[in-house]
Amino acid sequence: MGVFDSGVGGLTVLRALARALPGEDFLYLGDTARLPYGTKSPESIRRYALQAAALLRERGVKCLVVACNTASAVALDELAAEFAPVPVLGVVEPGAAAACAATRSGHIAVVATESTVRGGAYQSAIHRRRPDATVASRACPLFVALAEEGWTDGPVVEAVIHRYLDDLFATDAAAHPDTLVLGCTHFPVLAPAIRKVLGNGVAIVDSAETTAAALAEVLDAATLRRPAGEPGGRIELMATDSAERFARVGGTFLGRPLVPADVEVVDL
Amino acid sequence: MGVFDSGVGGLTVLRALARALPGEDFLYLGDTARLPYGTKSPESIRRYALQAAALLRERGVKCLVVACNTASAVALDELAAEFAPVPVLGVVEPGAAAACAATRSGHIAVVATESTVRGGAYQSAIHRRRPDATVASRACPLFVALAEEGWTDGPVVEAVIHRYLDDLFATDAAAHPDTLVLGCTHFPVLAPAIRKVLGNGVAIVDSAETTAAALAEVLDAATLRRPAGEPGGRIELMATDSAERFARVGGTFLGRPLVPADVEVVDL
Repeated sequence: MGVFDSGVGGLTVLRALARALPGEDFLYLGDTARLPYGTKSPESIRRYALQAAALLRERGVKCLVVACNTASAVALDELAAEFAPVPVLGVVEPGAAAACAATRSGHIAVVATESTVRGGAYQSAIHRRRPDATVASRACPLFVALAEEGWTDGPVVEAVIHRYLDDLFATDAAAHPDTLVLGCTHFPVLAPAIRKVLGNGVAIVDSAETTAAALAEVLDAATLRRPAGEPGGRIELMATDSAERFARVGGTFLGRPLVPADVEVVDL
Repeated sequence: MGVFDSGVGGLTVLRALARALPGEDFLYLGDTARLPYGTKSPESIRRYALQAAALLRERGVKCLVVACNTASAVALDELAAEFAPVPVLGVVEPGAAAACAATRSGHIAVVATESTVRGGAYQSAIHRRRPDATVASRACPLFVALAEEGWTDGPVVEAVIHRYLDDLFATDAAAHPDTLVLGCTHFPVLAPAIRKVLGNGVAIVDSAETTAAALAEVLDAATLRRPAGEPGGRIELMATDSAERFARVGGTFLGRPLVPADVEVVDL
């Protein structure tokens, strides 16, 4: 199973996938030399994503998960066309489906990177499922920096959350969104702080969990799931820049400590 | 005059250079497709810097200013060797000289990116001039994100500054640094907020101004200065990714509005 991200944030998705599919092997590639994708042009993002996916295909993965929201939003069609018949799965569609399942009022807010917000992929994916939904989007680039710095709670984090979200959620309770989609792989580590700021009246949707469920369906439909009894459960990690930094920052996202020797540095 | 940076932050340096040398033409290249350099490995930074400098040389610049602190700290020797006899000037040495001129106590703090801090270039450059100096360094990656977001004052900015700087400056007045070097081109736009947090007892050194003075000296020494009377003062801007984002974010750093048509997109 290949998992591709622009950096370390996709480890939140890898973690959910490995938990949901403990018998499968995973090969993760973080394009850390060229991150962040979230501020780059669609053309650059597509070129980078195709290169990364090509490397994973060379390594023989039987399915590709695009953990990066930005790449999912911008490059998924190209990747799917390029890699057919290898199934390619993004995180935007599962996240949009989860949001539509969670909302009662039909008012949904999406927080993501600049590129994801500008591309409008979540908005489109939500409206395909629920044409009457009201979708508000907000680019929150500081969330990425906070998560990478390992600052996941405390007054600075809450002040940034307030600055980005207050006007989205400050209207009277009937009108404001009842569901918030975390449309960037970095954001789940901030979920407890966001919960604290927004209170319990807002459902927080993290597409990692729903992507794991979607991947299980894809594997079953394509009979790609590893037969029970065969050894599996290996996780290999690759990055395009410094193994040391990947290990140091990545631990926050994978939820367990990493050392540089866990990370193979590759060139794209 | 070629000016190279990893992105838009170097426009603070370009602004100081153009003000100090109004008769010269400037060609600026921001490697926005691969920013930030500050979290990347020395090997990647050197490779990127050499490619960027090669493009500026092809365009016929008579002098190269490395406005990026990270590239100055990590790749200046390689750049100078590669481009001799074209003079290559970084921002670290002028910044260190200015800090040594400003400090009375010999206690100097440097804020910069991760790579610049890890490389220790400011520390070395300060100690060469003043071996008895005490130098404290702190990587402040959130400052970059704040500056790019255009958040340059207010409670969030001050909270981040407190979190990074309080323990450096919280000791009794005799022991704490009396000089702070802004060792990243993004940071000058936060200088007023930093001044507000630290008070007037700390000198804030921005290497852009001293780099401009150093460049004038280099030009005079090499008799490269444009003769008075010849037309000059043109500024051309190039970026390796989206002209739209360069123009939108870059205006904060250059101190005047930019439009996408001001920016030529080039490939490295």
